[in-house]
Parts: sequence; structure tokens; C-alpha cells
Amino acid sequence: MVIDAAAFGERRVLITGGLGFIGSSIAHRLVALGAQVSLLDVLLANNGGTPLNIRGIEDKVGVFYGDIRDRDLLRRLVAGQDFIFNLAGQVNYRESLANPFLDLDISCAGHLSLLEACRSVNSGARVVFASSRLVYGRQPSAPVSETASPDPLTLYGIHKLTAERYHQLYWRSFGIHTAVLRITNPYGPRQNVQNGRYGIVNWFLRLAMEGGVIRIYGDGGQKRDVIFIDDLVDAFLAAATTPAAAGQIFNAGSGQTAALREIAAAAIATAGKGRIEHVEWPAAEQQMETGDFIVDITKARRLLRLGPATTLAEGLRKTRCFYEDHAMGH
Amino acid sequence: MVIDAAAFGERRVLITGGLGFIGSSIAHRLVALGAQVSLLDVLLANNGGTPLNIRGIEDKVGVFYGDIRDRDLLRRLVAGQDFIFNLAGQVNYRESLANPFLDLDISCAGHLSLLEACRSVNSGARVVFASSRLVYGRQPSAPVSETASPDPLTLYGIHKLTAERYHQLYWRSFGIHTAVLRITNPYGPRQNVQNGRYGIVNWFLRLAMEGGVIRIYGDGGQKRDVIFIDDLVDAFLAAATTPAAAGQIFNAGSGQTAALREIAAAAIATAGKGRIEHVEWPAAEQQMETGDFIVDITKARRLLRLGPATTLAEGLRKTRCFYEDHAMGH
Repeated sequence: MVIDAAAFGERRVLITGGLGFIGSSIAHRLVALGAQVSLLDVLLANNGGTPLNIRGIEDKVGVFYGDIRDRDLLRRLVAGQDFIFNLAGQVNYRESLANPFLDLDISCAGHLSLLEACRSVNSGARVVFASSRLVYGRQPSAPVSETASPDPLTLYGIHKLTAERYHQLYWRSFGIHTAVLRITNPYGPRQNVQNGRYGIVNWFLRLAMEGGVIRIYGDGGQKRDVIFIDDLVDAFLAAATTPAAAGQIFNAGSGQTAALREIAAAAIATAGKGRIEHVEWPAAEQQMETGDFIVDITKARRLLRLGPATTLAEGLRKTRCFYEDHAMGH
Repeated sequence: MVIDAAAFGERRVLITGGLGFIGSSIAHRLVALGAQVSLLDVLLANNGGTPLNIRGIEDKVGVFYGDIRDRDLLRRLVAGQDFIFNLAGQVNYRESLANPFLDLDISCAGHLSLLEACRSVNSGARVVFASSRLVYGRQPSAPVSETASPDPLTLYGIHKLTAERYHQLYWRSFGIHTAVLRITNPYGPRQNVQNGRYGIVNWFLRLAMEGGVIRIYGDGGQKRDVIFIDDLVDAFLAAATTPAAAGQIFNAGSGQTAALREIAAAAIATAGKGRIEHVEWPAAEQQMETGDFIVDITKARRLLRLGPATTLAEGLRKTRCFYEDHAMGH
């Protein structure tokens, strides 16, 4: 879908988690399309968000440093918005069991407070929620379509699934336009690369660009669907502007599958340096490992009319250029 | 399954929601089997539980008036228990959206705190969680087995499903024996009949015993699976003592299906009085109505080795006898 500037020009948009990788990327796009953008972010420690992500548009967006769990604030922010991109969340699935109540609080109470705010002050807003492929867990067959039975292996995945159902319930019960995107492995400019917690593709690229060692558990043969951020932003905007997307869940992937060792090799090729080292699987990681994840993106392609995906080589090149111009600590 | 007294004699058992209909019925049985029983109940208003439910065993059980969300209390209570029957919960699906944060708090944070307590002080306990047929929502085909895709129509159902997944996660990740029972429509002695919020069968029987009018929405043709409390207690005990039940979900029904108007007619026959009046569907009720619910109980029968179910006529008779001996306000 070629996103129509008219759909967003002068329109009011709220992005929760707006200083994060995906939220800020949506913000950059929307500012270019002429939207009036507000960002909500609490800048949770070790969660990836940073004001650096809005460099270049800092005077064109309103930033609200607040918590999605703050119901009064939410009611004020939600009022009058045409679109809401709901990306706030605890991002690290590995740590969801280390602090289960925090994960519950942010991932469930937070989204419930957003939806309750819509219900009470703005049921006409169109909401798109960022879910994750991790709701699927290990699946017996591939490619995985949206009708597969979710089987999350982590508390993170369980809570994402719960929040998905909240969004669907508010569509069914109150007619609020909500669409859910189950994001595969996103990468690209602005993803935090301070450490390996945020995204495997960017992390591999960082290591390669520094001429470092990319450590891969086992043979690295497990497959992933990787989606470049620009394509993912397209999917978010289309899910907000497509009436038929209301109440729907979409796999938001590229349909391009690569083994982790192939992603590492591509990162090394893009950087012109770096090397791979295979190491043994830590037991805790193996328990959360989903195995190959190959995704069926037919539904999103058809209903959201998304164009062809950026290739991994091209996406990595653009990402490299971004990090050449910006500090890695970004 | 004939429950072996030896399985529970002298064993320590905690029942959360222990003053409710099902919790107290389990307590009565376990006391008879020689178990050392502790009950946790916060007596949430309008939630069905009452100390009247333990008349006859009040000097044989320890009652702790406390909240499942109180993590320190939970750790103290969970320590040393052999079995935990986890029945605490907000019981009214109709009201879950009227106070969504309370429902979330009790139904998710509460169960997470129980499981966290098991993880930290007693990972050897065997836990059985009371879920509900309402996780299924409307299903396209019948009978509904445990492999059907859940599609809850209410926040109550969403949160039950989330808590189910917590129990499964703690089995997978920490090896804690947890089993989940998806209860259909339970009825029998001790279910609160002060109003119609708690259970349709008992409520119909109360109205009939008072020679009153049973109001049925529409033609009352929608089918339900009704399970008598004694059979349900059997299922709970078997799920706790059957090693193969760990990590499993079971439909806890009787396999006996009756239309609502048939249930009403049976209640009238049992009481020897009362009459039916058909009224129009309220819109809000219709939205939450699941339609026919016919359940496949093969898995529970096989794995838990449950015996034949009590017939509706016999169950109603026993229930009538109970309420003849006890105040209806019970």
C-alpha cells in the first residue's frame, strides 16, 4: 500500500512507547505526512526508548513523559486523537519471569487503561496494537498463519496475548477500531544496539561493524522472519487506515526467512568485517527458543495491501548507513 | 475414579476461595478423607463465599481471611502444603467489564502471586486451577474439546485464559504440577442462591421451590452442560492426585446436555411447583451469550478415570434436600 498522505495530514495521532524503536519510526513517518503527533513514553530503564530517537523532529512532536498505567493522564491524552499506535511495553521476553508483576502491570493493566480511556472519551479513535510473534511459541507446522493456536513459552508472550484479546474485546463490545500486528523480528535504524536484548539483526550488525565476534548458539540453523522497519511502519499505518482491519490480527512479517547464521553472514558482508563463532546453547535460552519461525503473511498482504518487502541486504545497508551517521550508543 | 482416602489422609491442603461453593465442597470432602485443610478467602462482596458454607466442619479446618494478592501471606500459606486447590476469583463474568482493573488484579495478579509463592517456597505442591467453559466463547462446532481455539467474549474469560496459561507456564518452566479444569455449569448444595448471578441451575431451583416464576430469555433452547458438585469435587481430587494430569487442561463437565427450558422444567418437577415465563432477550445479555455449549469430556474421563455423572434429576433432588434443611439466604 502506498500510504496516502491525505490520510494523516493534519490528523491527530498518539503513539504510546513513542520514544522506542518502532514508535519513533512511526513518528518520523507521520511528521513527514503532516500529522500532529503526540508521544507518550515513560522511558523505562533498559527498555530501549530514548529521546535521541526523535532527533530531527523534536520540535514537531509533543512528548509526554508519563506512564500508560496512569489512567487520568491517559484519558487526557486519548481525547481528540484520530489514531493511536499502541507500542508501550516491557520489551524483553527473557526477563518477564524475573519480574512477573511488573510485566503484568505494564502489559495488561497498561493496555486496559488505554482501552478504557478510548471507551470513556474517544471511542472513534483507531487503535493499532503492537503484539509479537512470541505469542505463537513453538508451532508444529509452517508457515504459521494467524489461525494457529497460540502457545507462548514466556510470560511476555502470555501477556501480549492477553492484551491482544483486550483489543479485540473492545472492538466487539464497544465498536472501537482496533487492529493487532504480530511483529516478527524487526530491524533497522533506531533500534537500540547498546546490547543484544533488543533485536538480533541490529545486534549482529553492530558487532560486525565493530569488527567483532558474533556468537551463535549451536549451529544457528533456526530460521527467522525479519522485517525492515520501513515496511513495518507501512503495516502500522495501513492497519490504522483500513476499515476492514478492525478487530483483526495480522502477522507483520516480511515473508523473507533466513537462518540466524545467514543473518550473521549478511551482517558481516554488509559491514565488510566481523566473524562468527558458534557456542553451546545455554539451557535457559534453549527453553525459550521457538525453533524455526516461518510466517504466513498472506492476510496482511491482501487486506492491508502491503507492497514487496525490503530485502535483508538492502535493509542492512540502510541500517549500516544510519549507524555510520549516529553513535552506536544510540 | 474412586478417590483413595489414603491419597489425602493426613495430607496438607490449601483451598483458595475456600468459603465459596466449590471450594467449601472440596473442603467438606477432604475433611471426611482425613486431610488437614486450610482455607483462604477474602469474602469479596457479592462473590458468593460465606462462612456458612463450612458449617459442620468449622472446627476441623483453618480459615485465613486474606487476599490471594497478598504475596507475603501467600508464601506463608503455601509453604508445606501437599495440594493446593486454587479457586479464588471474581465470579461474575457479567460484571468483569464494569470493573476491569479489579478483575485483572484478582484473576491475574492473584494467581501469579500463588504460583510465585509455589516457585519460591514449595515447588512440590500439586495445584489444580478452576477455570471456566467461558474461555471458549462461541464455538463453531460441537462437542467442544480442549483443543478448540478459545475465544472468550468477556474480560472474565480473557483473564481465566491468562491464568490458565500461567499455570501451564509454571509447569513447563519450573516443573510445578498444575492442572486446569474448565468447569461447565456447576450446581448443587452450597451454591449461593441469593440472586441469579451465581449459577443458573440452583437459581431456577430456588425460584421453583418458592413457587415462583422462572424467566427465560427467548425460547430457552440454548444447551448447557450441567455438572453436579459431587462429580466436580471428584474431578478436582483426581486432577490433584493423577501424575499424568500435570500441565493438562480438562473440560470438567458431565457430558449431560440440557436446554435451559429443560433445566427449568426439571427444577419445577423437582420442586413440585413454579412456572416458566419466556421474556425478550436484553441486548447486553445476548452479546455475552455463547449459544449451545456441548462439551467433550473424553479426556477427563480417560485420564482422570471419572465415573458416571450424577443425573440432573438426582442432582436436583439432592440440592432440594439441602435447601430444605438450610436457609435459602445461604
